[in-house]
Amino acid sequence: MLKPVEKGYVPLLPRDGLQNEATVVATAAKIALVEALADAGGTRIEVGAFVSPKWVPQMADTAEVFAGLTRKSGVRYSALVPNLKGLERARDCGVTEVAVFAAASETFSKKNINQTIDESLATYGDVAREAHAAGINVRAYLSTCFGCPFEGDVPVERVSGLTARLLDMGVFEVAVSDTIGIAHPGQVRSVLDVLRARFRPDQLALHFHDTRGTALANVLAALEYQIHTFDSSPGGLGGCPYAPGATGNLATEDLLYMLDGLGIETGIDIAKVTAASLAIEPAIGHALPSRYVTAVRSRAGSRPTRA
Amino acid sequence: MLKPVEKGYVPLLPRDGLQNEATVVATAAKIALVEALADAGGTRIEVGAFVSPKWVPQMADTAEVFAGLTRKSGVRYSALVPNLKGLERARDCGVTEVAVFAAASETFSKKNINQTIDESLATYGDVAREAHAAGINVRAYLSTCFGCPFEGDVPVERVSGLTARLLDMGVFEVAVSDTIGIAHPGQVRSVLDVLRARFRPDQLALHFHDTRGTALANVLAALEYQIHTFDSSPGGLGGCPYAPGATGNLATEDLLYMLDGLGIETGIDIAKVTAASLAIEPAIGHALPSRYVTAVRSRAGSRPTRA
Repeated sequence: MLKPVEKGYVPLLPRDGLQNEATVVATAAKIALVEALADAGGTRIEVGAFVSPKWVPQMADTAEVFAGLTRKSGVRYSALVPNLKGLERARDCGVTEVAVFAAASETFSKKNINQTIDESLATYGDVAREAHAAGINVRAYLSTCFGCPFEGDVPVERVSGLTARLLDMGVFEVAVSDTIGIAHPGQVRSVLDVLRARFRPDQLALHFHDTRGTALANVLAALEYQIHTFDSSPGGLGGCPYAPGATGNLATEDLLYMLDGLGIETGIDIAKVTAASLAIEPAIGHALPSRYVTAVRSRAGSRPTRA
Repeated sequence: MLKPVEKGYVPLLPRDGLQNEATVVATAAKIALVEALADAGGTRIEVGAFVSPKWVPQMADTAEVFAGLTRKSGVRYSALVPNLKGLERARDCGVTEVAVFAAASETFSKKNINQTIDESLATYGDVAREAHAAGINVRAYLSTCFGCPFEGDVPVERVSGLTARLLDMGVFEVAVSDTIGIAHPGQVRSVLDVLRARFRPDQLALHFHDTRGTALANVLAALEYQIHTFDSSPGGLGGCPYAPGATGNLATEDLLYMLDGLGIETGIDIAKVTAASLAIEPAIGHALPSRYVTAVRSRAGSRPTRA
């Protein structure tokens, strides 16, 4: 029996949430969200992305968000970068941690970033080298690890091989990502059986979307493998339950409710994150999908309505 | 290590879902739903409740639903009954399985059914005796097993003692219920550590609400204890995510998606249940909260929108 996880790490991804919201949020509201997440105890916050504003208008003001942000000591503020140009922009903003994003499916890679997997890894190798030379840490996302919307099943050996290539570049962690939210705990176990035979738990993070409601069960399954780092976005930003393309990240609050209940310390205050999420909600124009936030909003827990 | 669960049993509870919907659904739509659930492979369906129509208007037509229903061989159609009068009405409808509902919290019992726990158990003892004499099987719900909205924590010893008293009446199964949807997997483990030391897995069912998003993770934790029976309602009926009192049952589809993925056979076809849920959705006047149904509706899985 492996030692149970006692301390959890929860990177907060307003970036991933907001970039999938149709309504462009004002820069000031983004800054307020990031500052509130840091106040809540978040120590890893992915603030934005230095990508083309043509492709992701929501991220066009990332430099302004960084410029306006009052940074808190001990908090790692990061940004997504697709290439050397993005890295340069990040460095100009004083960013000390960036993330690159590769895919485990060739078709998804072509459609998402218009590069083959090998081309993207060549780019990210350059980014990692330059970043490290500048004292900037690099995280890598590996998307479609549990299935691809175009190719279907993705062989776990490919996931394992790409994880190794990314770690070889010196990235400190690979976020094994369920891009389309189809992973279930049986699959988490079969993927982690392979990955954990090769990698340490601190080299891996898991990035779940709650599209089919399985994200927390997947986290529970991953904890059996001593994985302790789980991505989330406040309120489940990025997933509108009643709009096309509802593929929201696991909500930070839902994750914290379970980790708190399991006695796994994260240092993040669920009430403060909930307040931060509720504060940004009006700006996105629809109700946040987080179950926990919904329960708080409706005070569901205090009404006896059934046997 | 215990033997893993290979076969799952999924009682379908349109009753619990519908009774918590504000809009009264037409009798014909209820009949169509129950018939569609049987066609989907459901073998246990809780159709309605023989309770006072003053308290639960949605259940006023339960006799008509039973009368209009084309029953399928091999399917157990049940009804909730609060007392001997309810049992008599059920018997008149040819119902061969009923359910009684006790609480593990004194305050909740008083507020929900206006009886002390002991008074309710005396009533249910009479119901069980009469039911068994008439060849009718009895299930028992035990609500607030993971916490009470009025009293807070509920001692697991009380849950265990009441489960034993209910089983002593000859009920075939006690549905250990998280009435307000606050259970998390840590608590599931601590409750089942106690219950499984005393009861066989087939004497227990688990009844989760997905109020805080933890229902599937709770099921995953319960599977470790060889529990194999999990309540659900189609589409997560009964929980409107944006209305006060959002305390929906775990959605059948979300549950099936996970159990299917774990290789646990239920005999129920997820696509057919989804179709049944989508067919009833217009009648309830809001979107169903099931994540899986939402994903199907939005075809979220087929759109590549993120890294």
